[in-house]
Amino acid sequence: MENIGLIAGNGRFPFLVAEQLRHNGDRAVIVALNEETDRDIEKLADNITWLPLGKYQKLIDFFKANNVSKVIMAGQVKHANLFAGLSLDLRAIKLLGSLINKKTDSILGAVADDLKKEGLELLPSHIYLKHLLPAKGILAGPKLSSEEKKDIEFGHKLAKQIAGMDIGQTIVVKDKAVIAVESMEGTDECIKRAASLGKEHIIVIKVAKPDQDFRFDIPVVGIKTIEVMAQSKARAIAIDAGATLLIDKERAFETAQRNGITVIAL
Amino acid sequence: MENIGLIAGNGRFPFLVAEQLRHNGDRAVIVALNEETDRDIEKLADNITWLPLGKYQKLIDFFKANNVSKVIMAGQVKHANLFAGLSLDLRAIKLLGSLINKKTDSILGAVADDLKKEGLELLPSHIYLKHLLPAKGILAGPKLSSEEKKDIEFGHKLAKQIAGMDIGQTIVVKDKAVIAVESMEGTDECIKRAASLGKEHIIVIKVAKPDQDFRFDIPVVGIKTIEVMAQSKARAIAIDAGATLLIDKERAFETAQRNGITVIAL
Repeated sequence: MENIGLIAGNGRFPFLVAEQLRHNGDRAVIVALNEETDRDIEKLADNITWLPLGKYQKLIDFFKANNVSKVIMAGQVKHANLFAGLSLDLRAIKLLGSLINKKTDSILGAVADDLKKEGLELLPSHIYLKHLLPAKGILAGPKLSSEEKKDIEFGHKLAKQIAGMDIGQTIVVKDKAVIAVESMEGTDECIKRAASLGKEHIIVIKVAKPDQDFRFDIPVVGIKTIEVMAQSKARAIAIDAGATLLIDKERAFETAQRNGITVIAL
Repeated sequence: MENIGLIAGNGRFPFLVAEQLRHNGDRAVIVALNEETDRDIEKLADNITWLPLGKYQKLIDFFKANNVSKVIMAGQVKHANLFAGLSLDLRAIKLLGSLINKKTDSILGAVADDLKKEGLELLPSHIYLKHLLPAKGILAGPKLSSEEKKDIEFGHKLAKQIAGMDIGQTIVVKDKAVIAVESMEGTDECIKRAASLGKEHIIVIKVAKPDQDFRFDIPVVGIKTIEVMAQSKARAIAIDAGATLLIDKERAFETAQRNGITVIAL
């Protein structure tokens, strides 16, 4: 039995991590973020503190007070919140000030290095959730036409480049043209915009970075994205096999199947 | 005196071309697009035909019937229109069918090659408008802080890569993070989205491709973009010196100046 730290962002991802590590017989010591985390996370916590984003020293103090030496980050923190008059503590200011840019990997890489100095090791976020990483192949929905396969190939190459530039994980294509590129608005907003521009049968591609650091920012696809795609009459979503967390798999696949949406892992 | 063909898209760009070539003593033979071109273009035409997008053979026939051997494309054609149940003629279908993808350069490159076979040479779109291309330096608005300069440098590099992938011309950054990447929605929509995510003081970067083909798709910045920036309390716009058409320069600069928006050409 070990005390595992969990920095919980939004969505279902931190819930799955907490459930699984308790299932394994460990204790979940959770830092929940006022702006992001679902209140229900309390039920899965052996100890919990609520902090506003930016109170970085308090996060470290809480983990150390709870004899935590391993920490997992799970769940998105909306980048937009970083621009909404955030009140940073001195340690966060110092850390951000040391960055050459504020891309996700820069920020989180610096956080990981800094935590290490305090004896806090950041674990891969999917370490307890390997069963949610898909294998290659069509996971739900109808076969793809050869035109659709070509669109996916075309889009996947570009998406990897965009992700490698640390801009966003998602692009939407149709008929070998790029309709939308995700940056800070998030996947679902990007899909909605693409649908309003490209109409029905758009194809969504969501990828991990070429050299994905699994300690943070691993792509997640769940029921919500499939529902947005269904509302948009989207045609297919392609994800990276072994590098995308598929959340609410049964409901997501059932919704995809019912709406003629193909889910494919490459 | 020569008959110059003009394929007129939306906005002021085709008006400026038509004015200038008539000013030079040539005749403007205009193909206007039902979905795109401002009706007032009629006033500047020595001969004009209105066609729906996709009636490609008729465009060729009209130019040939008017003894045109040089053609200019000016003004955007909303990519979204390419997905709105367009009725293509046989020649357009054949041409599009021959493409390996439907990125702008692929489509227009194929059009240029095809026109050439008919004796129609596609000229650089800014051939009559060189006086609208800015020189390097701050063109309007206050000086930039060193942080803002770094943001522009950071964003310009990424924007060039995105443009080189033929995805879009514009990205919006703030505090060394990418807030929005333009694809099919266009510059102004991209700026509005970025403002809603990144709040005020965002920085817009609009670039030409690394190997810009000036026959098509040259970046244009006019009063509308500056007005959208003013509404968004944006901080600055960086453009490429010598490779961006600055339209309505006086009004654009005056609006920038009044709203504390810096316009800089790199």
